[in-house]
Amino acid sequence: MPPGYNGKILRINLSTGSRSVEEPSEVFYRTYFGGRGFNAYFLMKELKPGVDPLGPDNKLIFSTGPITGHPVSGNGRNSVGAKSPLTGAYGEGDVGGFWGAELKHTGFDAIIVEGKSPAPVYLWVHNGEAEVRDAARLWGLDTAPVNDALQAELGDKQLKVAQVGPAGERLVRFAAIMNDVTRAVGRTGMGAVMGSKNLKAIAVRGRKTPPVADREAMRAQAKWLSDNMMELNGGLHTHGTDDGLIGLSITGGLPTRNFQEGTFERAEDITGSTMTKTILTGRHTCYACAVICKRIVKTGPPYNVDPAYGGPEYETCAALGSCCGIGDLEAIAMGNQRCNAMGLDTISTGTVIAFAMECFEKGLLTREDTGGLELRFGNAEAMLQTIELIGKRRGIGDLLAEGVARAARQIGRGAEQFAMHVKGQELPMHEPRIKHGLGLGYSVSPTGADHVHNLHDTDYEVEGSPRFEAAKSLGILEPVPFNDLGPEKLRLFIYHVNWQSLMNCVGLCIFPAWRYLRTVELVRSITGWNTSLFEMVKVGERMNTLCRAFNVREGFSAADDTLPERFFQPFADTKPTTAPLDRRVWEQAKLAYYYGMGWDENGVPTRDKLGELNLEWVIEEMEKAAIPLP
Amino acid sequence: MPPGYNGKILRINLSTGSRSVEEPSEVFYRTYFGGRGFNAYFLMKELKPGVDPLGPDNKLIFSTGPITGHPVSGNGRNSVGAKSPLTGAYGEGDVGGFWGAELKHTGFDAIIVEGKSPAPVYLWVHNGEAEVRDAARLWGLDTAPVNDALQAELGDKQLKVAQVGPAGERLVRFAAIMNDVTRAVGRTGMGAVMGSKNLKAIAVRGRKTPPVADREAMRAQAKWLSDNMMELNGGLHTHGTDDGLIGLSITGGLPTRNFQEGTFERAEDITGSTMTKTILTGRHTCYACAVICKRIVKTGPPYNVDPAYGGPEYETCAALGSCCGIGDLEAIAMGNQRCNAMGLDTISTGTVIAFAMECFEKGLLTREDTGGLELRFGNAEAMLQTIELIGKRRGIGDLLAEGVARAARQIGRGAEQFAMHVKGQELPMHEPRIKHGLGLGYSVSPTGADHVHNLHDTDYEVEGSPRFEAAKSLGILEPVPFNDLGPEKLRLFIYHVNWQSLMNCVGLCIFPAWRYLRTVELVRSITGWNTSLFEMVKVGERMNTLCRAFNVREGFSAADDTLPERFFQPFADTKPTTAPLDRRVWEQAKLAYYYGMGWDENGVPTRDKLGELNLEWVIEEMEKAAIPLP
Repeated sequence: MPPGYNGKILRINLSTGSRSVEEPSEVFYRTYFGGRGFNAYFLMKELKPGVDPLGPDNKLIFSTGPITGHPVSGNGRNSVGAKSPLTGAYGEGDVGGFWGAELKHTGFDAIIVEGKSPAPVYLWVHNGEAEVRDAARLWGLDTAPVNDALQAELGDKQLKVAQVGPAGERLVRFAAIMNDVTRAVGRTGMGAVMGSKNLKAIAVRGRKTPPVADREAMRAQAKWLSDNMMELNGGLHTHGTDDGLIGLSITGGLPTRNFQEGTFERAEDITGSTMTKTILTGRHTCYACAVICKRIVKTGPPYNVDPAYGGPEYETCAALGSCCGIGDLEAIAMGNQRCNAMGLDTISTGTVIAFAMECFEKGLLTREDTGGLELRFGNAEAMLQTIELIGKRRGIGDLLAEGVARAARQIGRGAEQFAMHVKGQELPMHEPRIKHGLGLGYSVSPTGADHVHNLHDTDYEVEGSPRFEAAKSLGILEPVPFNDLGPEKLRLFIYHVNWQSLMNCVGLCIFPAWRYLRTVELVRSITGWNTSLFEMVKVGERMNTLCRAFNVREGFSAADDTLPERFFQPFADTKPTTAPLDRRVWEQAKLAYYYGMGWDENGVPTRDKLGELNLEWVIEEMEKAAIPLP
Repeated sequence: MPPGYNGKILRINLSTGSRSVEEPSEVFYRTYFGGRGFNAYFLMKELKPGVDPLGPDNKLIFSTGPITGHPVSGNGRNSVGAKSPLTGAYGEGDVGGFWGAELKHTGFDAIIVEGKSPAPVYLWVHNGEAEVRDAARLWGLDTAPVNDALQAELGDKQLKVAQVGPAGERLVRFAAIMNDVTRAVGRTGMGAVMGSKNLKAIAVRGRKTPPVADREAMRAQAKWLSDNMMELNGGLHTHGTDDGLIGLSITGGLPTRNFQEGTFERAEDITGSTMTKTILTGRHTCYACAVICKRIVKTGPPYNVDPAYGGPEYETCAALGSCCGIGDLEAIAMGNQRCNAMGLDTISTGTVIAFAMECFEKGLLTREDTGGLELRFGNAEAMLQTIELIGKRRGIGDLLAEGVARAARQIGRGAEQFAMHVKGQELPMHEPRIKHGLGLGYSVSPTGADHVHNLHDTDYEVEGSPRFEAAKSLGILEPVPFNDLGPEKLRLFIYHVNWQSLMNCVGLCIFPAWRYLRTVELVRSITGWNTSLFEMVKVGERMNTLCRAFNVREGFSAADDTLPERFFQPFADTKPTTAPLDRRVWEQAKLAYYYGMGWDENGVPTRDKLGELNLEWVIEEMEKAAIPLP
């Protein structure tokens, strides 16, 4: 068994109560690495095609990576995978906090949850043991009380909880799984899958740290980042991920009023430095991370925001803020609290509400539809009430809980033009019109509109910027403009998107300034493998192709690699730094991406590429499903 | 300018006598690295399509790489490129010795020779200066006297000479350029191109060592190899490259009697350890290399072999030995001397003579054709006399000097079945029937049958072998059988062939046991670039694709990616370790290679791949030549 890992994967069937422990080979570990790698492997291998994402045949997989749980900044990540109830495609949410590291310390690298419990249960996983326990009294509760209840019931204040809130129980299609109350497995509705299995929570506690191949080398790397943290990541530390909001607004790329505009007149009120000066009461971290970019906030009346629910990230400030036209930071913090309490993805929630606001303003939704809510941009109260309605699937919330794609279809009358989604997943708070590569990434991501395995193509245009300098290791030798989809951008896009895919396999956060080569060194020091940037980008490529194959088996094609029409049009408030995408260029870039990935013109992975990527077994799976491969 | 390089390329036009110095950008250097990278770049950019390889419009380029000339084992390589008179395709010979390092020390990274001198000349390049000087009195001389004459004429015993012998002057299509008398730029007839330009020699002398980014790191690497040389490269040191001949014979993969057999009954007589015990008088090295794998041999009558001409490599012992059925090591050493003296590639020479012997034995050539020579396998005297005839283009030698492909066409009556070549270049001494990947490599190499940018697919089947362990850095995680062309082999093949292509760009020998990651570290320490295995494999891929594009422009297609029929048949003396290739499997593997490289089913690089590899300019060149691209 390679150092860095436990070598054990726990499998639990909630229908039967059966448990087993699998010990895959080292070749398996080095082929898939962990996280997304494990998720996609087991989902492709074990799910029947066409399975109901909310039925007992879906599987929900919690996976760590080789770095998760080791004391280096950014290690505290885990990945959760299942077929997505939001997109119907490969689903994945990636998350930080303490839960992933604690899972690693239980002696397991991953947990595969199968079946469906007849009644609410939770799992208690500790030091190599696993129990299924009754959760009746927890069902319906918000996340913080459940967290407290489990720590009390199990008599361990140090145990960590991943759980669904009321939103997941009610199968809101973009329900999150909450780690440590404050960190969301936000994207693609993993919380709904967990809720559908009547699984309220997984509590973990462990004291096993897997061996490390070269502890000294690992520590030297960790020390380098800690020693240079303020220089490398000072903004993130001081003002959190929301630090950059104001800059985006100035350059015209801040999603505002459902992506109609790129500059928000109240951006100053909701940016990170303002949070620091106003509602911030503390900074928080993930396991063993020196960056400490998490926020703790508290307010007085009217919201009385509770610091137990953390504080809003950039995504939340933009999604519940500028995207809804709201410049009230305390209201945003309250929205964040309610999303974390009920287990809702703040990104999809914000984009869904912004969609509803645009529909309301344009007459496609009326006060009758909204139960009297004046659902206009800028109405913070309406935003907060809509969150409640969604989390509880009441009134208009029941419709919106289906996500923008389904809601728009149901509303009809052109509402789809206001639905900012790809493959049914709502857009995160990064504007394609200031990052053309990211827009392409939304289109082709296996998870729909997603920023977590995507290119953020700013800074690469700046000679000497850390991003550009790091990208030289990939052979990107000349600055690349952000609003561009030329060959240089496509090269960067393909290489980097594969790298980001790998990042969701290793269990490392993108925020600490490790970048490419230091990440390779971390994996080398922890696992003892003679791995390289070449091998690791290939692992990422393998996983992008495996996820693609999963989606092809589920009936997805190039026609599903879309981007909302809005991004091919200029903003209402266009700035010189922004530019709409050109549809012809974007179509060509999509094709170039397919070919660059070794897929055909329909985006279907070729047999040769599957062979090259050590995915011969996928050819067999596709043949079983009668899916023709080029 | 990046450390490691001079930043200057010398260009000389022999028709006009004009000289110029170019100073390419750092981006150019990092995109192409050197060696093959420079050669292929300038040939694609500057040669008119369809140019006569032996006419004044061909260009002959001598290129070093970033490692060439720096004091680490294996650095003493340079690459020579031109359109090949043997194949009509991209031509390249790679060579060790001292000349390449000395060129680097003159202050130039490469020399581009254009045009044709009206009379014999040589170049004298020293410390940033270049002179064209009269070579009338050297014309027709063997290499050792020319070397001595130039050192005397220029008054410097330390200068180094690259030159053609009588064979190059007479445009023997497989004439070599000889570095330091004893080291051959053997393949693809670069000596004929040099001869066609009336360029007898290039003498170089310099004392400029380019700066090194991190000298301490470079020295630490150099020390590691020196300290561990006997353990890592002991066989090579003790018995030379010919050390492995006996093993190949035992396992049945030693080219014998024109590849009819794989085991040679007199292998023991011509293997490296026998050489050590008999004719070896000294060991020699290339510039600053601790491996010291070169041989010096001497014999008494009848041959009186002169130690000035070095000693035979494995390739020579097999080509002039087993492949001609000859087990007389002294005769082989004499053949080596005459090839080095006249400037002949011993590989092509041996394969040509073996072809002639088979034709003679099978009645396609008669004593009348051979001028009375009894040209039978095992006849050492006939072998030696044929070398003389070829080098001087006399009698049967004039026909054989055209290479096996042209000679076979002229002989007709089925002689082509005995012509062991791909694209007109004769096979080196590595048997496809014991290395299926290498066989595929012969087929698809831009230079025809070539072992220098190819996969040697033995040892990868052995768990724990240095080759297999090193290949894990490429993600090759499970042992790969040698006689196989399955997906695991193809993956290894594609990655490794791109790597070998890169090796001919960096100016590093494959013999010292640097392998993948230490080579990356060397380039990092010398250049200061934050390069990676990813970037360096991409450089190799870029060059394979660029050479391919060159050949497509010259009219080559998938139909030229052949392998002699013999290799699809079992040996006369098949052993269990050997197996013929299966034509269907080989055809499929060829296609998989094309697709894996981003080429179409005809082996034509796609526009998208050219774009991804930063070769957009090649698209323009192809359009100028009216070559359609997929």
